[in-house]
Amino acid sequence: MENSPTVGVSALVEQAKELQETASSLISRTTREEDALRQRVAALDSSINSLRSSLRGSKNSDKLEEELMRVRYILSEGDAAAFLPNKSHGRFLRMFLGPINVRANRKDVQLKVKQEYNIFRDRTAYLFLSLPSLLLILRSWIWGGCLPALPVQLYQAWLLYLYTGLALRENILRVNGSDIRPWWIKHHYFAMAMALISLTWEIDQGPDCAQKQIGVQLFLKWAIMQGVAMILQNIYQRQRLYTRIALGKARRMDVVWGETAGVEGQLLLLCPILFVLQGFEAYVGVLLLKTTLVGSNLDWQVITCGILLIVMAVGNFANTVQTLITKSRVKAKIKRGKSRQELNQGSDDKSL
Amino acid sequence: MENSPTVGVSALVEQAKELQETASSLISRTTREEDALRQRVAALDSSINSLRSSLRGSKNSDKLEEELMRVRYILSEGDAAAFLPNKSHGRFLRMFLGPINVRANRKDVQLKVKQEYNIFRDRTAYLFLSLPSLLLILRSWIWGGCLPALPVQLYQAWLLYLYTGLALRENILRVNGSDIRPWWIKHHYFAMAMALISLTWEIDQGPDCAQKQIGVQLFLKWAIMQGVAMILQNIYQRQRLYTRIALGKARRMDVVWGETAGVEGQLLLLCPILFVLQGFEAYVGVLLLKTTLVGSNLDWQVITCGILLIVMAVGNFANTVQTLITKSRVKAKIKRGKSRQELNQGSDDKSL
Repeated sequence: MENSPTVGVSALVEQAKELQETASSLISRTTREEDALRQRVAALDSSINSLRSSLRGSKNSDKLEEELMRVRYILSEGDAAAFLPNKSHGRFLRMFLGPINVRANRKDVQLKVKQEYNIFRDRTAYLFLSLPSLLLILRSWIWGGCLPALPVQLYQAWLLYLYTGLALRENILRVNGSDIRPWWIKHHYFAMAMALISLTWEIDQGPDCAQKQIGVQLFLKWAIMQGVAMILQNIYQRQRLYTRIALGKARRMDVVWGETAGVEGQLLLLCPILFVLQGFEAYVGVLLLKTTLVGSNLDWQVITCGILLIVMAVGNFANTVQTLITKSRVKAKIKRGKSRQELNQGSDDKSL
Repeated sequence: MENSPTVGVSALVEQAKELQETASSLISRTTREEDALRQRVAALDSSINSLRSSLRGSKNSDKLEEELMRVRYILSEGDAAAFLPNKSHGRFLRMFLGPINVRANRKDVQLKVKQEYNIFRDRTAYLFLSLPSLLLILRSWIWGGCLPALPVQLYQAWLLYLYTGLALRENILRVNGSDIRPWWIKHHYFAMAMALISLTWEIDQGPDCAQKQIGVQLFLKWAIMQGVAMILQNIYQRQRLYTRIALGKARRMDVVWGETAGVEGQLLLLCPILFVLQGFEAYVGVLLLKTTLVGSNLDWQVITCGILLIVMAVGNFANTVQTLITKSRVKAKIKRGKSRQELNQGSDDKSL
């Protein structure tokens, strides 16, 4: 009974066994409760879906559909979202990470992940702008019109890391309930491929390198424009997220209505810039293809990068237009909803 | 009260609100309970550490230290392990994934992650063996002694993916409590760098390409040997994991003693092969450096790859030796422990 190390150790053994028991029962109880909740959430989710499809086509269903949207919103934006059927992690995450779960249970953690993603995008956008600018400035000031291989390759390696990081993070966001359009993730897969290919691209030296390096220069100029667009996009999207978080704290369920409030003007500025950039992207792609037709060197890298740029430009354009259409539809619906609400004020239970 | 869609929707709204409440309270209760348990586990963990350091140097402390090891083992191999202080995710995971949590709470999930990692290693080991073999065979049979650029670059891109995937997965395993040596992860960072550099490496064509491609050929030969070693290592490690799982089911706390049982013979075969491979790795590194001294082309890529190979060989050797020393020490301790246990049989509470 004396306070010797032996006693200390056996007390610790007891403590460890007890903690082990407690942990074991806590984990199994939590798992059981979570599984039960998951089943109920899944049942509600499928009821919403079946009711929605039964409403489709019937007259005067707008009000009901709005109510259904509200139910879906409660489910997907509140704490219950953690128990919605798991979105598949997707091939890309499995390829790099294996079967580990990257879904956060708590809404505040999910929002933190999204905020950090925006900070990451923000930081990289400035690098995206400054690195190719620096290369082009040094080219004319110091390198006498001829880019050396190593700095360009370091830049390309950074691009590869950047796009891999973005693709991984966006997949993780998707698993955590973000409604990011699949195209933007696919776009980063294409960009990864392009960065990888550009690494194998020979940076020509010699007397007529200014002529031979036209492809690389075009690529760098496109990257500078891309950097500007990224910075503008980030400002827009961050503001949107802050609005959501602020509203989420005040009235969590109303967020969807206030989502586009206050950033309308910025969207008007952003869209033309995005369209110009997409045009320039396609133009660079066409120019790359043209250099292979005119020049003597028929590098497969230049051809592939040209095609990839054109594919990305077309896809970006189509998806930006679709986003705009969706946004204006939602806005129209809200307006309609509001005017009807004014008409129906005080008669919420009126059967239609 | 009729069974119209309106009634259906308002029932769903109620249900959604109730599920939201339930989810919210479940999450907050679980978080509270887990935090409390986490504090207790952390307290026990620090008691173990302080008792251990107070024991150090004192006589006759072997038995006590063994008991402490047992306590530590209960904590780290049981369900309580999920509540041990979080291992930092490390820079590498944060760089690629952001602040997402990749720690699995349940022991069976952790073991599944480890098993999948082994399957991944297994699958890639065969590719690791066959891809460079194929390249070398095609080189002499079809390509007339001269490797074309594209297949080699595809292989190098695959290597870059492979090492990135391994490094990510090993970091995830470490967060999940694996005691993987930091060197093996660092080793994969070096290998990532080498794969990236080799992509920018010009694959010389032309009449004397057989001479100029010596570096690439050496690299491919080393990769073949590496593939053989990986396959052997995988067989060994998988067997070890299966032993652990089987024992873990039977007597979870005894695993540490049975860890090396039954695979002793394979270790005797594996070690010489590993040492030969490490010697060959350093030799390839030296040869690469030599080609830059003799030849006319002073590619920085070849020099850097040469240095990286030598660094990796030395590090691999040092860490293999250290692993062997640790293993034999543990074995000696077990033997000593067993003989003392036989002496002390039935007198477990005897004060020393």
